[in-house]
Amino acid sequence: MGQWDQLTEQQQNEVERQLRIICRGAAKIVPEDALKQKLAYSVLSGQPLRVKLGLDPSAPDIHIGHTVVLYKLRQFQDLGHEVQLIIGDFTGRIGDPTGKSETRKQLTEADVKRNAETYQQQLYKILNPQKTKFYYNSSWLSQLKFEDVLQLAGKLTVARMLERDDFAKRFGSNQPIHIHEFFYPLMQGYDSVSLQSDIELGGTDQTFNILMGRTLQEAYEMKGDGQIAILMPLLEGLDGIQKMSKSLSNYIGIDEMPNEIFGKTMSIPDQLMLKYYELTTAITNEELLELKQGLQEGTIHPRDAKLKLANEYVRMYHGERAAEEAHNHFVTVFQKRALPDYIEEVRLRASELEDGGTWISKLLVTIKLQSSNGEAKRSITQGAVKINERKITDQNERVVLQDGDILQVGKRKFARIKIE
Amino acid sequence: MGQWDQLTEQQQNEVERQLRIICRGAAKIVPEDALKQKLAYSVLSGQPLRVKLGLDPSAPDIHIGHTVVLYKLRQFQDLGHEVQLIIGDFTGRIGDPTGKSETRKQLTEADVKRNAETYQQQLYKILNPQKTKFYYNSSWLSQLKFEDVLQLAGKLTVARMLERDDFAKRFGSNQPIHIHEFFYPLMQGYDSVSLQSDIELGGTDQTFNILMGRTLQEAYEMKGDGQIAILMPLLEGLDGIQKMSKSLSNYIGIDEMPNEIFGKTMSIPDQLMLKYYELTTAITNEELLELKQGLQEGTIHPRDAKLKLANEYVRMYHGERAAEEAHNHFVTVFQKRALPDYIEEVRLRASELEDGGTWISKLLVTIKLQSSNGEAKRSITQGAVKINERKITDQNERVVLQDGDILQVGKRKFARIKIE
Repeated sequence: MGQWDQLTEQQQNEVERQLRIICRGAAKIVPEDALKQKLAYSVLSGQPLRVKLGLDPSAPDIHIGHTVVLYKLRQFQDLGHEVQLIIGDFTGRIGDPTGKSETRKQLTEADVKRNAETYQQQLYKILNPQKTKFYYNSSWLSQLKFEDVLQLAGKLTVARMLERDDFAKRFGSNQPIHIHEFFYPLMQGYDSVSLQSDIELGGTDQTFNILMGRTLQEAYEMKGDGQIAILMPLLEGLDGIQKMSKSLSNYIGIDEMPNEIFGKTMSIPDQLMLKYYELTTAITNEELLELKQGLQEGTIHPRDAKLKLANEYVRMYHGERAAEEAHNHFVTVFQKRALPDYIEEVRLRASELEDGGTWISKLLVTIKLQSSNGEAKRSITQGAVKINERKITDQNERVVLQDGDILQVGKRKFARIKIE
Repeated sequence: MGQWDQLTEQQQNEVERQLRIICRGAAKIVPEDALKQKLAYSVLSGQPLRVKLGLDPSAPDIHIGHTVVLYKLRQFQDLGHEVQLIIGDFTGRIGDPTGKSETRKQLTEADVKRNAETYQQQLYKILNPQKTKFYYNSSWLSQLKFEDVLQLAGKLTVARMLERDDFAKRFGSNQPIHIHEFFYPLMQGYDSVSLQSDIELGGTDQTFNILMGRTLQEAYEMKGDGQIAILMPLLEGLDGIQKMSKSLSNYIGIDEMPNEIFGKTMSIPDQLMLKYYELTTAITNEELLELKQGLQEGTIHPRDAKLKLANEYVRMYHGERAAEEAHNHFVTVFQKRALPDYIEEVRLRASELEDGGTWISKLLVTIKLQSSNGEAKRSITQGAVKINERKITDQNERVVLQDGDILQVGKRKFARIKIE
């Protein structure tokens, strides 16, 4: 700890303060003692640390699960550091070269650009734009020649690569691993070489890929100490069991409508509430402790704590007023079992309506209460669709709409028709 | 065998004739039945087949061991086919990217060019220049972008690659395999894609790499049937046990002096003689059979057969007259234990001679009878060095040379001094 002795007592206190904030909620920091040194260097030199996060360009819908790392980034920014956001457009543009898997579809440059804009608009709800830099990794990766790629590949052994959990599992059970797959961790690591990152953030499922950054920085003989991995816990979704993810439909998207966010938050299992608070809100360590004690001692009702959390999420992503409205809506619909105070108006042109009535499934899609005819049909089968509180049972019913009709899907989706 | 029925009887006979010549001596042909189809196609269409051989740009000294495949190529040319010689300059230029191994040293472009010229001059002693095309694999490999490299890597699984003997052994015994090493077979295979080769030749130790050509041609959906591997046996060197190789000093280089080639050939173990004849000379199948029978029945003395082989090698690489002289030299020196008829003259400038005599070890190096002082000293210790048939016993002896002095090392190296 050479730097440490050069710090004044005040500077040492500052390092300790930053450490406490950064370490909160982190599952693992590798190597742990190096973080203090990095912070000491930063405090001493006045140089902000470069904190990296890689983004998947194919999935720009950010949900509360993602905000675990985003909040950590925001904390770094509040402590004076800089964030490097890397859009993995190079990987995304390539798709899956085997052409056999449908899991990773090839993105066009336009897709990537549009997704990046969507990202930006969402991310700035959490991050400080002044301290955020965006990068596209194609800008360095597409420049690599075959020679460079071979050099990169020469930095790691096959055995080491096969230690990655999923590779080890597939190799052990004779599932094919195509050789190009080895390059995904290598590319992620090379990003850290290219940007000289000091710290990289990610979920614990990214451990192997994130450690690759330090390995490659050392292999490329980067000056100074290699990057530190800060690995955040994975947040369980609404089911309370599996990692929050869009494909499992157990997520709360930060771009969802206020009532959706509010309602979904209210469905979080009680035992996860403190974890959500700790990892995805601006709550201070002191407030967190208070909340925890209150819940344990029974002076705070879990339902109230959850209402406050739901309120907080809507406030964060839609503002104070929307939070109030969503709160009232929730109380009205779910607690009084009546229609909400406010129902969003959907405008339809008379020309969009069919003579003899509009087919119900198509209507639900047109007014965006459902995303497809198939989804609409399933909702009807499940008895979740109502018009003016009358349940629809026939998938093929044709509805003659009038101004002010209220359509409802499930407990949280409403629309008030306005015919123009 | 769709093509076969379209051939006239004469054409079918031609295919059979070519098959007999091509199959002679081959250790393995993969896939075997496809060769007949390729030949049938060639005879029917009048299109020559493209027969590929990869050359290592770092080792341009061709020895009799190499001529096993070169002779096979010559047979293809004599049957009307074309030879593709690929100088692996891309691989050679890269060297070993780990930077840890000394086995593969990095070549400059000038090295590669000079080596290629040396190759050409030696190869044309065997091959027909009219039917030989040279290629540098850098011309396509250096054009590959990262995307292309990933696509190439995606064509093969890790498990399949680890089936290669040396990889399997190293992986099994926890010896490191660096990921870039996977690209050497992939690059060799990609060469076949790029040149649309019909056939690739190599030693049996190249089996995995050569089969890669067909695999990749299919993966890249090349038109027509993929290439066929013709794998030739490895030729044991003068020790009769290990594969002939320069590093083991058990080789006969085709650029060596006539007397060296002759003498070394005479030291081949008797039991390997027929293999040398079969794989590295123009002997016909009929003559080979005759020789075999003669040796078995005792009507041909092994020594005579070997003299003829030695004669043949010198004739092939230095011409008729050199063969006669080397033969006479050998008989004189080794059979009559006298000096040879012809001793090469070495010219020395008077200024190269030291007053008070020239140090014997240094002299042997200067006139190129020995390659280093160390080697010279060892030869003296072993009693192998003579001046005018007087044995030298003192490593530090200083010799006062006169015109016409004859220096000798061992049984085969002579020099007659000419002072200018």
